[in-house]
Amino acid sequence: MKLKNPPVNLLSLELLTEFVISLEKLENDKDVRGVVITSDCPGIFSAGVDLTEMCGRTPAHYAEYWKALQELWLHLYLSSLVLVAAINGTSPAGGCLVALTCDHRVMADNPKYRIGLNETQLGIVAPFWLKDMLVNTIGHRATERALQLGLLFPPVEALQVGMVDQVVPEDQVQASALSAAARWMAIPDHARQLTKDVMRKPTAERLLRQREAYIQNFVDFISRAPMQKALQLYLEKLKQRKA
Amino acid sequence: MKLKNPPVNLLSLELLTEFVISLEKLENDKDVRGVVITSDCPGIFSAGVDLTEMCGRTPAHYAEYWKALQELWLHLYLSSLVLVAAINGTSPAGGCLVALTCDHRVMADNPKYRIGLNETQLGIVAPFWLKDMLVNTIGHRATERALQLGLLFPPVEALQVGMVDQVVPEDQVQASALSAAARWMAIPDHARQLTKDVMRKPTAERLLRQREAYIQNFVDFISRAPMQKALQLYLEKLKQRKA
Amino acid sequence: MKLKNPPVNLLSLELLTEFVISLEKLENDKDVRGVVITSDCPGIFSAGVDLTEMCGRTPAHYAEYWKALQELWLHLYLSSLVLVAAINGTSPAGGCLVALTCDHRVMADNPKYRIGLNETQLGIVAPFWLKDMLVNTIGHRATERALQLGLLFPPVEALQVGMVDQVVPEDQVQASALSAAARWMAIPDHARQLTKDVMRKPTAERLLRQREAYIQNFVDFISRAPMQKALQLYLEKLKQRKA
Repeated sequence: MKLKNPPVNLLSLELLTEFVISLEKLENDKDVRGVVITSDCPGIFSAGVDLTEMCGRTPAHYAEYWKALQELWLHLYLSSLVLVAAINGTSPAGGCLVALTCDHRVMADNPKYRIGLNETQLGIVAPFWLKDMLVNTIGHRATERALQLGLLFPPVEALQVGMVDQVVPEDQVQASALSAAARWMAIPDHARQLTKDVMRKPTAERLLRQREAYIQNFVDFISRAPMQKALQLYLEKLKQRKA
Repeated sequence: MKLKNPPVNLLSLELLTEFVISLEKLENDKDVRGVVITSDCPGIFSAGVDLTEMCGRTPAHYAEYWKALQELWLHLYLSSLVLVAAINGTSPAGGCLVALTCDHRVMADNPKYRIGLNETQLGIVAPFWLKDMLVNTIGHRATERALQLGLLFPPVEALQVGMVDQVVPEDQVQASALSAAARWMAIPDHARQLTKDVMRKPTAERLLRQREAYIQNFVDFISRAPMQKALQLYLEKLKQRKA
Repeated sequence: MKLKNPPVNLLSLELLTEFVISLEKLENDKDVRGVVITSDCPGIFSAGVDLTEMCGRTPAHYAEYWKALQELWLHLYLSSLVLVAAINGTSPAGGCLVALTCDHRVMADNPKYRIGLNETQLGIVAPFWLKDMLVNTIGHRATERALQLGLLFPPVEALQVGMVDQVVPEDQVQASALSAAARWMAIPDHARQLTKDVMRKPTAERLLRQREAYIQNFVDFISRAPMQKALQLYLEKLKQRKA
């Protein structure tokens, strides 16, 4: 499965919706037992959430967007498929979110690439369910540092802290991801899926228990005037940088 | 304490029951403050649960067996004694369970030996309380991998991932286990026991809260026709391999 | 902020109270965004709780003291400030507690210094909230060992197990702590504080939910005759050692 929303694979509302639909199709296709998620955009796995969806819109739009992001997370994190991330480019925030949901992560050994949850650097805050997934992956203390400092790790450091499982030369990312997928698919599906559920359901259920309340929290947080102003400034800076 | 159910120390219903009785005796013996658990069967610490107890029997038998396994786990994991595992042979599934309940694990440096929870490889699933204990021991992410892939670790890898605490030459396993026990017994019993409780009670209580329901879940799971068929095939293959 | 209660910075009731008041002042001072906590006593960061506050007093005094210790912990652990520990000396038990609440820990590379929760060595037990914070810092398994054995780690081992983040030459402790603080303060306060809350609130809330009951538990535990006798003996031994 190739993420394709040039130039940087922003997780727009449209992409989130299509992503979930594609996943559901694959889940229901009996010939498909595993999926490699990678990027079609050179040098970028995914630049993460689309800030234009959170800026200058209606509260109803913010709620719709946030619900769609949660929906994608729930589908990926609890997928009955074997999911392997072939991280062939930089992967901040929402891009890192997608990678962390996978069963195995292979990253290209390109010292320019970065991966991490850098929300605080932009003045925003990762939601608790994303924090929970990072704690599950790299532990509580490493999460405290990574999340509060908004750290973006180069590949070798990402491997050391446990954010990815393998770092390989850039031209071997896809092949390595495929052979990792084969290894996971060698396990009887039923036993592997039940075990994945035992591991991940409690984390997902913390969100599911009060999902609507958490969406409302986000809408309140993002709608505030200073937050909107900060996002506007940031988006304008981005535009100027490109120009 | 030597496990003795030749040839491979299967955790039969009888052994589970005797194991718990022996533990209770030791707990009540004021002269005993620590126990080293090891195997009397060359090359095998314990081959784990006895699948013949889960195959072709009545639901009542499955319930009795599963309750006895939980009982052993609860006694070992919450034991007020210092428990040290002297792992002098391969230790899959239920054998690994016994080792993981101990306060300290010493494994023989024999590259043929393996330790791990390989349930998924047999098409079955480790119960959540066994998963919880593994998470407590090696962390969440390493558990996701080890449990879903049903990994059996050779001694050096078991040490790296944290599944054992020490790897020593085979002829020094017992001596190393004894000196580890001595180190733990140097701590005032009362303070050590209360601290062990603070560490482990919350994990045990997740099982205790709904123990009957979890036994029933297991009985339903194991009684299903496809599961029974899979176990039968596996047991027949084992018989042929021996013949 | 320099701890100053010579000769060994015992956390007396008076020091606990003053510590909390100073923290509240700093929290309310808009010019202060980060604090380095260090010791004014050569070779000792803090020797921990003052056992004379727990020995030969009234139950009401034990309750007051324990509440004050919890209060300090809650203030430090949930502080909206960036807190960095400059550990310029040995730091057992309550001293380690103070260090563990910080966002970053720098320890002097002096092989005579030690850090850890050695309560069991004295026949007492670390409370569950202190255990929870240690689990958050070094993981569950390392906590089982460290807490039950009452381990005091020299600097290099403290770094390996994750109890401190940096070990530097003794004359660079303050400078390293300041530059770590600067790094944390480079993050927008609001996002960093909310993220810290997401990480730490659930741990603090386990105490807050039943705080009075936990204080009463402690009073019952410490008031028992054998416990009082053990403390008395220990304090007499300490006196003799000094004389």
